[in-house]
Amino acid sequence: MPASPTPHVSWKDRMGPTLDGLRRAVTTEDGPSGVPARLRGWLAGRRSSGRLLFLNFRDGSGFAQVVVAKNRVPPESFEAARACPLESAVEISGAAFADARAPGGMEVRAEAFAVICAAEPYPISPKEHGAQFLLDHRHLWLRSKRQHALLRIRDEVLHSFREYLREQGFVCADTPIFTPNACEGTTTLFETQYFDRRAYLAQSGQLYNEAVALSVGRTYCLGPTFRAEKSKTRRHLIEFWMLEPEVAWAELDDIVALAEGLICHTVERLLERRALELEALGRDLAPLRRIRAPFPRITYDEAGEILAGKGTGFTLGDDFGAPDETALTEDLDRPLVITHFPAAIKAFYMEPAPGRPDRVLGLDIIAPEGYGEIVGGSQRIHDPGLLRRRIREHRLPEDAFSWYLDLRRFGSVPHSGFGLGIERFVSWMAGLSHLREAIPFPRLLYRLSP
Amino acid sequence: MPASPTPHVSWKDRMGPTLDGLRRAVTTEDGPSGVPARLRGWLAGRRSSGRLLFLNFRDGSGFAQVVVAKNRVPPESFEAARACPLESAVEISGAAFADARAPGGMEVRAEAFAVICAAEPYPISPKEHGAQFLLDHRHLWLRSKRQHALLRIRDEVLHSFREYLREQGFVCADTPIFTPNACEGTTTLFETQYFDRRAYLAQSGQLYNEAVALSVGRTYCLGPTFRAEKSKTRRHLIEFWMLEPEVAWAELDDIVALAEGLICHTVERLLERRALELEALGRDLAPLRRIRAPFPRITYDEAGEILAGKGTGFTLGDDFGAPDETALTEDLDRPLVITHFPAAIKAFYMEPAPGRPDRVLGLDIIAPEGYGEIVGGSQRIHDPGLLRRRIREHRLPEDAFSWYLDLRRFGSVPHSGFGLGIERFVSWMAGLSHLREAIPFPRLLYRLSP
Repeated sequence: MPASPTPHVSWKDRMGPTLDGLRRAVTTEDGPSGVPARLRGWLAGRRSSGRLLFLNFRDGSGFAQVVVAKNRVPPESFEAARACPLESAVEISGAAFADARAPGGMEVRAEAFAVICAAEPYPISPKEHGAQFLLDHRHLWLRSKRQHALLRIRDEVLHSFREYLREQGFVCADTPIFTPNACEGTTTLFETQYFDRRAYLAQSGQLYNEAVALSVGRTYCLGPTFRAEKSKTRRHLIEFWMLEPEVAWAELDDIVALAEGLICHTVERLLERRALELEALGRDLAPLRRIRAPFPRITYDEAGEILAGKGTGFTLGDDFGAPDETALTEDLDRPLVITHFPAAIKAFYMEPAPGRPDRVLGLDIIAPEGYGEIVGGSQRIHDPGLLRRRIREHRLPEDAFSWYLDLRRFGSVPHSGFGLGIERFVSWMAGLSHLREAIPFPRLLYRLSP
Repeated sequence: MPASPTPHVSWKDRMGPTLDGLRRAVTTEDGPSGVPARLRGWLAGRRSSGRLLFLNFRDGSGFAQVVVAKNRVPPESFEAARACPLESAVEISGAAFADARAPGGMEVRAEAFAVICAAEPYPISPKEHGAQFLLDHRHLWLRSKRQHALLRIRDEVLHSFREYLREQGFVCADTPIFTPNACEGTTTLFETQYFDRRAYLAQSGQLYNEAVALSVGRTYCLGPTFRAEKSKTRRHLIEFWMLEPEVAWAELDDIVALAEGLICHTVERLLERRALELEALGRDLAPLRRIRAPFPRITYDEAGEILAGKGTGFTLGDDFGAPDETALTEDLDRPLVITHFPAAIKAFYMEPAPGRPDRVLGLDIIAPEGYGEIVGGSQRIHDPGLLRRRIREHRLPEDAFSWYLDLRRFGSVPHSGFGLGIERFVSWMAGLSHLREAIPFPRLLYRLSP
């Protein structure tokens, strides 16, 4: 039983060409006999016009129209293509031609069609299914053209965030999920037995990021975050991903500019690299093309005045609700930056505003088009005495924060950072009405599978 | 209280130059008066030679030697530089000069030195500290030149993995952490209350990856993984990160080639972009330069014969222990690929070897230099009947796997994938004797903080 029966072939040479590659070839090499094509993938759709079958074929890299003409293929090929269930795994040979009328600008004319593995009758049909049915079949629903586009958009968003931060000298440092203390109250924390003690699942990497920022200057973490919140809204997930940059020496204005730069870069890259996918979702690209820095910027108090004029029922001193956020951004074509929040409604570590100790140098960024808060952050307190006082005022266990206080005892400097919710950002970009489609396998209040 | 007191300045223009940028400028613009430098950072070390102070200064982007000459700076600057505690936050102005004798090829000559925030006496000194002491002070230990290098090496490894996979058309899809079933036994799973039911923290994204691979063809996940294993070895972490690619239509040989391509790309990029950091760790680069595809490849049975000759006490039918792995690779200068394991010691989903049903198409890759297993994977069973039989033989709850079986009912195709442990890979690259330094905040059997 020899393990290497064949000579070494590299990965790049092993895997056959994809639709993606074929589409590129067709635009440059198209001739009267087309570009030879041998494709493996799945049958995503079919319509028949007597002696012609129009197949919607997908191979993972994309979708293409395949035409099977009765008089161009062996009879068993035509019969297989006509009858095999949707989502069967199939192999097609033929030739690809540029065709402006075909979706994606290319048509494949089949010379042979074979079923590799016939599917059972496929549960998802082109008709409308309810959200619960689709979520129950999430493992199959992911194959639709729409979910395909969403997977690639999410991938591109994550890539563009990382790309921008890397260009700016940031170091990605993964912060821990298991944390020893329920620092800010246990109500929304998941807990687990960690050998002979309890551990809690982190809701943010921020405190750890601060330690890393005082080492490498500019850092970020990007990972899953967990919130045991009994809310069942279209803007909440139990398990979501968050990007959190943290920068030594950065003050509030710097971090606002970082958020602007990061968001604008990612919107631009998405328009450049994923316009086809955005269009497949029916996303209107015009609002995305208008996203430019600087973003309009107001204080919490100014926002309160605007809301008083709009009559959303907002009470000064409270946090903004979703209707407030929508009202504040309804006339805007860019995200809105809000700063200088009441200290009472924000976390203990936020730096007080100069000359206004009841306000803190926090920032929220609200997406336009009703997509709500996408960024929350602040300048952090760097004075050790003030930070200790805040920890006591918030009745937090000082012991648990001794390492965090150390960051102020040894070379403390102003520093700032924020968290950006990946699924909220993807929803905004893709124009989704609910976060559940912005992550491959959503975890919701009543949903833990598949 | 205006929120925007200053005109808009972009992020790129806001943050001052870093040592990194200064070092590049010095190599091109160095003249008799040097390159003007104004630096903010921390005092990492100091030695005195009477009227000259040699400071080891770090600013996050790197380290540099700063010379403070008594006759070149105001008296209060000299006194501050002489007396301030290590790790104080400081500001230095002066000029930078190329200097082949200085570490990193650059020396900064100070004209002024000011302490922004004096540190308390710093607990970590250049003397040897025990591992427990350093781990207790992990939040400060991260500032050392060694940990600095490790953070950047880890970042580069992750970047290079993603870069390679992106070039090959892979889509990153994040798999869930919360899973509903303790599919393969609960002994090493962390569990938590998920509202009115129990949830378990995922140990792999593989099953989910398989669903995504049948959609986009080539996918990977890269995230934290949890194993409640009561082992306290230098090769185990309770929380670790794992890269898991999964490829539709790929068979065992394809996935071996993918692992080779991925590993070789990352080693090359690391040597290209992080040679300074590797050298700062004292890593011998020669063994890394010898890593080339193809890797030597043997079957499990061949490995058993080799081990019988070496007398490690290995019993055919067992899994390899760390001493076996070291013995198998001791004469090799590349990673070793082992395939065709006994079905009895591997997971239920592995495809049987053609003509040898007691052996499966699994693969392990063992790093040279004694760093152990870095990759484990397989071709997956794609036949629905065989997969169902295996699930029953392994006494797994069939209900919990109904969605996984669906992947074989609807367009099943051969597919393969593997998992690569990030910290093990980083340890190998960096030449670490223990995984605990390969992750910013390690979680170990008796360590959950800081």
